[in-house]
Amino acid sequence: MTQNIIVIGCGTAGAAATLQARKISRDATITIIQDESLPEYSRCGLPYTVNRVIPRIEDIIIHPESFYTGNLVRADLRLNTKALAVDPKKKTVTIKTPEGETDSLSYDALIFATGARPSTPPIDGLDAPHVNRLHTLEDAKQLQTVAKKAKTAAIIGAGLVGLETAEALHSLGLRITVIEFLPQVLPAMVDDDMGVLIQKQMEAKGLTVKLSTTAKQVTKTHVVVADRETNTEEEIRADLVVVATGVRANTSLAKDAGITLGERGGIRIDNRMATNYSNIYAAGDCAEHDDLVTGQSIVSGLGSIALRQGEVAGINAAGGSAELQGVLLARTTHLFGLEIAGVGPTRVVAEKANLPVLAGKFKGSRTAEYYPSEEDVTVKLLANKDTGLLLGGQVIGPCAHQRVNVLCAAISAKMTVRDVADLETCYAPPVAPIREPFTLAAQILALRYERMQEKKQKG
Amino acid sequence: MTQNIIVIGCGTAGAAATLQARKISRDATITIIQDESLPEYSRCGLPYTVNRVIPRIEDIIIHPESFYTGNLVRADLRLNTKALAVDPKKKTVTIKTPEGETDSLSYDALIFATGARPSTPPIDGLDAPHVNRLHTLEDAKQLQTVAKKAKTAAIIGAGLVGLETAEALHSLGLRITVIEFLPQVLPAMVDDDMGVLIQKQMEAKGLTVKLSTTAKQVTKTHVVVADRETNTEEEIRADLVVVATGVRANTSLAKDAGITLGERGGIRIDNRMATNYSNIYAAGDCAEHDDLVTGQSIVSGLGSIALRQGEVAGINAAGGSAELQGVLLARTTHLFGLEIAGVGPTRVVAEKANLPVLAGKFKGSRTAEYYPSEEDVTVKLLANKDTGLLLGGQVIGPCAHQRVNVLCAAISAKMTVRDVADLETCYAPPVAPIREPFTLAAQILALRYERMQEKKQKG
Repeated sequence: MTQNIIVIGCGTAGAAATLQARKISRDATITIIQDESLPEYSRCGLPYTVNRVIPRIEDIIIHPESFYTGNLVRADLRLNTKALAVDPKKKTVTIKTPEGETDSLSYDALIFATGARPSTPPIDGLDAPHVNRLHTLEDAKQLQTVAKKAKTAAIIGAGLVGLETAEALHSLGLRITVIEFLPQVLPAMVDDDMGVLIQKQMEAKGLTVKLSTTAKQVTKTHVVVADRETNTEEEIRADLVVVATGVRANTSLAKDAGITLGERGGIRIDNRMATNYSNIYAAGDCAEHDDLVTGQSIVSGLGSIALRQGEVAGINAAGGSAELQGVLLARTTHLFGLEIAGVGPTRVVAEKANLPVLAGKFKGSRTAEYYPSEEDVTVKLLANKDTGLLLGGQVIGPCAHQRVNVLCAAISAKMTVRDVADLETCYAPPVAPIREPFTLAAQILALRYERMQEKKQKG
Repeated sequence: MTQNIIVIGCGTAGAAATLQARKISRDATITIIQDESLPEYSRCGLPYTVNRVIPRIEDIIIHPESFYTGNLVRADLRLNTKALAVDPKKKTVTIKTPEGETDSLSYDALIFATGARPSTPPIDGLDAPHVNRLHTLEDAKQLQTVAKKAKTAAIIGAGLVGLETAEALHSLGLRITVIEFLPQVLPAMVDDDMGVLIQKQMEAKGLTVKLSTTAKQVTKTHVVVADRETNTEEEIRADLVVVATGVRANTSLAKDAGITLGERGGIRIDNRMATNYSNIYAAGDCAEHDDLVTGQSIVSGLGSIALRQGEVAGINAAGGSAELQGVLLARTTHLFGLEIAGVGPTRVVAEKANLPVLAGKFKGSRTAEYYPSEEDVTVKLLANKDTGLLLGGQVIGPCAHQRVNVLCAAISAKMTVRDVADLETCYAPPVAPIREPFTLAAQILALRYERMQEKKQKG
C-alpha cells in the first residue's frame, strides 16, 4: 500500500516519525512541513550553546537537510513552510510556501508534531530587546549576543529551562537572580525538600533565588517583583532577562480541524498515538496522553517521550503496528555540579491524582563508607500507601539518572518497595556502597508500609 | 524462646548475622568465634589501603570491638579463637582459646561464616618473603612494607583482587606484569571481548599483561612463566610477587561435622541459608547456593551476597523468618580509570549451564552525541535464545554499576530484551543520550531474537 504521509513539524517527534515511517514503508511519500529554517535540532541542547560548552550552535542540529531528502529517508522536506489548515474529511493540508503562496497537499496519514511554544506570563515590558526566551536556535544566538554586554541577569521561572539557562549565564560571569512564582525550584521535577538541596547549591555558588515571587514589570535596568505573601515590591537589577515560564502545546491547527484536545490542552492521543481520526496521529510536546503511574492525562514535554511517540506515530502512519503504554516521566538534568533525576509523579502531583502516598528518604555516601569521597547521594521514594507499589522517586547525586533508570524498571515491573529494598545491587568500595542508597530508601518505606499493614490487620 | 546462637567467623556474613540475630531476639545469647585479632573489616577495601587511597588500614574495620560487646549488640566476641570441631548431635562447638586451652560451647543455632582462604597454585618458591597475598589486613600491612622497596611487581592472577592490587602497586610507581592462566583478564566478571577493553586500558597505562600464561617458579628476582600454547619459557623481573589466584571456601570444619557440601565445594545451603541440619546455617564465602539465572550451584564470593546471606541466616537462627531466592551475581569494580560492572553469567558460564545464549553489544556516548564528552559506554547483553529473557549483562564506562543495577531489576522482574529495549530512561544532553546505551544493546538483541522467532514460525 503506497501511503501519502504528511508530518507537520520537524522537531524530535516529527523527525523520529519520518525515519520510522520510511523504515516501515519503502514506497510511502513522506512530506515534512517545517515552519523553521532548519530540520530537527536539540531544544534540550540550547542552554549549553549559550556558554559554548557545546562550541557551535549548529552542533545541535541532529541531521543536515540532505539527510532527510537523500537516498535513505527520501522525504520531501519543506522548510520555512507553514501549515495553515487541515481538512480531515478531504484529507488535505493547506500550506503557505516560503514564497508566500498557498498550496494544498493530500494525505492518507497525517502526523501532528507541532511541538509547543513558550507561554507568555502577564508581565509588563516583555517586548524589550533585552528580554529573551530560549526556545529556538535563533533565541540561543540572540542570547549569546545579549549576554556579552550584560553584567546582571534575571531569569523568570525556576523550571528546567530557567535553571539550565541560569547556569549557562552564571558560568559566563553574570550575576544571576532567579525568580519563581512557586515556593520551590524545579517544581515539576522534584518535591520541595529535594528542591531545597538544589536551591542551597545555587546560593552557595552565588546566585540569588527568589521563591513565591511574582515578576510584575521589566524595565531597561530592572525587574520589578512582588513577594506573593507580603506583597512587598522589590527591584532586581537585570541588564538581561530570560523568560522561562514553561510552554503550551501548539494545537490551534488541530483544534480548528476538529481534532479532540485533552483536558490539559494537548492533542489527545491513544496508545497508537492516534487522535479521534484513526489516520491522524500526534506526538511530542503537542500531544496529551496517559501517565502510567497516576492514570492522569498529561502533556509530558520531554524529548525522550517525543522521540518514542514520534517513532510509534511514524510506524502506524506507514501501515505498521506499534504501541506506547503511557509514560513514566523519567527526567534528569545536571545543575551547578549536581546531577538530578526523577521518575513518576512528585508528591504534589500524586496527591492531586488522589493517590495515597507514603514517602521515604535516604542520604548516603556514593562509595563504601570508609572509602574517601566527597559525594553524597540523596534518594527520595514515593510508594502507594495501600498497595506498597513504587510510584516514583527522585535522586540527587552521582549517577542519579541511572539510579532513576532502575526505578523506571521497577515501576514498569510493578515492583513494591519491598521488592526494591531486596534488589541485589553492585558493590565495590570505590564505586558503590554494600547497600545501595535507593535500596535503603526503599527499606525505610517498606518497613513503614509493613508496620501500617500489621496495624490494619490487628485493628 | 531464649536461643543460644554461635556464629563462627566475624567477616561480613558473620557480623551481619550477629546484628540481625540481635534485632530479632532481645534475649538470645550470641557468641562469635573469630580466629583473627579483629572483628569484621572490608576485604574488598584491602587493595585501596596498599596505596593509601584509604589513608589508614584501620579505616576498613567496620565496627570497633566495643560495638559488638556493647549495649546494642551484646555479643560475646571471642577474638583470636579457633573453632576446632562441631558436633551437630550434641550441639557443641569445641574451641581453642587465645590462651591455647580447649573449651566446649553449646548452641541451639549455629552459623558458619567461615569465609574462604586464598588458593595455592602449584608454583615453586611461593614461601619467599617477597611473595604476598592480599586476603587479610595483615597481608595489606606486609604488602605496604614490601612495596616501599620494590621497583617491579608480578601479579599472578588477573581476577578482581589481582587487578585491583596491580592498580594499587602501579599507582605507587612499580613496573607491573600481570600473569593470567586463562586467555583474558577478569574471566569471572566479563566476557573475553569486554576483557580486551580492560586489557588495552592496562597496556595503555604501561602495565604488561601476559595471558594464557602459567607461572612456574618464583625466584628472588624473577617469575619464570611459560606460554600455555607454545610452552616457551620467559623470566619476568619482579622484586615483589602477589599471588591472587582466587579463593577456596573454608569448609573443613563443616565437612568434619557431617554437613553436606555442594558440588563446588561450599557448604550447601537452601533459601533460608540452612544446611542439612535445620539449626545450622551458613552464609558468605563458605556457602554454596543457587544462581537465580543459571540454576547452577555456585559459591559467589561477593561481599554484597555475604551481607544478604548473613542477614538471612541471623534472622532465621534467632527464630525469625527470612529467605533469599538465589543470587544474580551483581558485581562491579573500578580499574585504571574504567568503571566495570556485570550481572548474571558470562557467556562461557551460561553455555556451560546449557543455556542457549544470544549476545548483543552496543558502544555509545555517555552524553547526548552532540555534547562534548570523552567517555564512552560499552554494554554487552546476553539473552536466552529460546525465550528472549534477559540473562545478564556487562558494562564498561561511567555509571556502569548503576546501569547493571537496572539489569538486576530487569532480570529479577523476568523482563525480555524487548522489555529492556522499550524501557523509558532519563535523558538530558550533559547527563545521558536520548537513547540509553543499554536500551540500544537490548534493541539489537530484541530484533535478532524476533527475527529468529519469525523464521521458526515460518518454518
